[in-house]
Amino acid sequence: MLQDPANTQPPSPERIVTMLNAFQQSAILKGAIELDVFSKIAAGHNSVPTLARQCRADEHGTEVLCDSLVVMGLLEKSAGTYRLSADAAMFLDRRSPMYMGDITSFLFAPEMIANWFEVAAVVRRGGPDGLATVAPEHPIWLDFAKGMASFLSPTAKKLASLVTSEGVPTRVLDLAAGHGLFGIEIAKLAPDSRIVALDWPKVLEVAQHNANAAGLADRWEALPGSAFDVPFGAGYDVVLLPNFLHHFDPGTCEGLLRKVHGVLVPGGRVITLEFIPNEDGVSPPFAAMFGMMMLIATPKGRAYRYSELEAMHHAAGFEGCKLIELPPTPQRVVIARKAL
Amino acid sequence: MLQDPANTQPPSPERIVTMLNAFQQSAILKGAIELDVFSKIAAGHNSVPTLARQCRADEHGTEVLCDSLVVMGLLEKSAGTYRLSADAAMFLDRRSPMYMGDITSFLFAPEMIANWFEVAAVVRRGGPDGLATVAPEHPIWLDFAKGMASFLSPTAKKLASLVTSEGVPTRVLDLAAGHGLFGIEIAKLAPDSRIVALDWPKVLEVAQHNANAAGLADRWEALPGSAFDVPFGAGYDVVLLPNFLHHFDPGTCEGLLRKVHGVLVPGGRVITLEFIPNEDGVSPPFAAMFGMMMLIATPKGRAYRYSELEAMHHAAGFEGCKLIELPPTPQRVVIARKAL
Repeated sequence: MLQDPANTQPPSPERIVTMLNAFQQSAILKGAIELDVFSKIAAGHNSVPTLARQCRADEHGTEVLCDSLVVMGLLEKSAGTYRLSADAAMFLDRRSPMYMGDITSFLFAPEMIANWFEVAAVVRRGGPDGLATVAPEHPIWLDFAKGMASFLSPTAKKLASLVTSEGVPTRVLDLAAGHGLFGIEIAKLAPDSRIVALDWPKVLEVAQHNANAAGLADRWEALPGSAFDVPFGAGYDVVLLPNFLHHFDPGTCEGLLRKVHGVLVPGGRVITLEFIPNEDGVSPPFAAMFGMMMLIATPKGRAYRYSELEAMHHAAGFEGCKLIELPPTPQRVVIARKAL
Repeated sequence: MLQDPANTQPPSPERIVTMLNAFQQSAILKGAIELDVFSKIAAGHNSVPTLARQCRADEHGTEVLCDSLVVMGLLEKSAGTYRLSADAAMFLDRRSPMYMGDITSFLFAPEMIANWFEVAAVVRRGGPDGLATVAPEHPIWLDFAKGMASFLSPTAKKLASLVTSEGVPTRVLDLAAGHGLFGIEIAKLAPDSRIVALDWPKVLEVAQHNANAAGLADRWEALPGSAFDVPFGAGYDVVLLPNFLHHFDPGTCEGLLRKVHGVLVPGGRVITLEFIPNEDGVSPPFAAMFGMMMLIATPKGRAYRYSELEAMHHAAGFEGCKLIELPPTPQRVVIARKAL
């Protein structure tokens, strides 16, 4: 879908029609995940009649759905039976530890779909109507915490490895922890560390569950509430801001960073994980498109460029701000220090 | 988006996330067309402040939208100004004779979007809830007739050339004429022909307008009503069924073909234009995906394979059925004859 900028093919309506119809592929995959066809095919229900029975679905409907999934590269078909492509086997079969089907309830939250199909109105206003996802206790964050954990687990491991390679922390504050994985993975690599995780109470139950499952119950503490209202305590050598700043305007981000600065020990680090477009605003693709997600989903949020993030950190009192890639993820990390 | 079946890359969540998020590109393009940003940039309003003013939109929102369109390959950006890619200049600037932005009201009709985001329910039932697009006088067909004309014009010209190359008709029936272009293009190549065009009355007003604009007022006649109810007259040497059979079940299609057979002269031809998947049901991509569109949009419609279309034509009394490609369009043509 994302086009080669050096594209030299003659103009064609096909490419535009493909983009206009691209939503159908999202909708088909959403429906297939809801019917759990991937798990059922993997479990051996791989012909239309048995699969339809398992899904309590119409046979013709089931065949049309599966044939579409073949075109989309998620199933393979031979002699009237289907099997999962490598991607589908790893990420769409419920028995896989990498199963990511639960992210659909976050990605396709009805109010977000409604905003997406009103892009013109959102662009006119400069944002959604109302607080959207940053409303207090918005239930979408429970979906996010539950659905994104398996998907973000590799990113969390990479970030933990990066953070501990520069110094093993002992007291970590995980802000807007969500599923809690970013703090949990650091705790695993830093055996003497204690994690304090902040989020809305309902979301923290998910993080608490994950921390307990990781055997961290005695080194992990829940701090329920809003990052803007709740006192953080003090004496942290690392504060995590994973995918949080993009929800807010620059002034709000700067205020939060100043609060973080206040609770860090001298030499302590703030670790910001973000989708950060290049200064041109149009690359790399995912980070550049992330700006539109924030326009749709938040009143004042943005996909900040590094120059903007660096300015916020400096204004909040930090030094030695640096940008680090986190390949192969599309995310980038900003690390800044409180002066010694 | 459609994956290479010989794909040998290792499994990656990125491809699945890209598919799940693909709807955002459709939504962004829909919004950009509604704001008419392409025409406005083409007219010289190519920086964020002037473009935002022209669109009566927020500046930050306008910048985010345009940067997304750069990622999507529809705009190019340099030194803070935007210009249209070749595709956008040809198909998305209102001043272009090939402008196709009007198809959005057909593609994104709210009730169709609602069905798409309930694929699981549609697959369970084997179709939408209710008659969907085949309900009598459904207003979506007015959007279709108005929006698809410029987009389908090259297909109509190709079909007319194919039809007249096998014999120049004198009396043509254009069933479910819509914008009327399929009959109109034949009339242009067959100067002694008369066209009778059938569709719902409101839709026929669009076709009448197009026929008048083509200078065919004296050779073009409107026959308002349903193809299943209205007598067709008699003595046709060509009957067109452009993109019509896919809305109905096989028995209904066969009955309609029998009615067509009855009004053709001996040796007369029925010309069916369709998206026809190969017998495997999963290729070529667009035709294979078209089956899901019909599952969503019609109670009993299907993307028929050629073997199914051939069987219907034979059962209705036709002979010499053949399948013809219509490159570079994704459509195919079935031509059958009434015996001499």
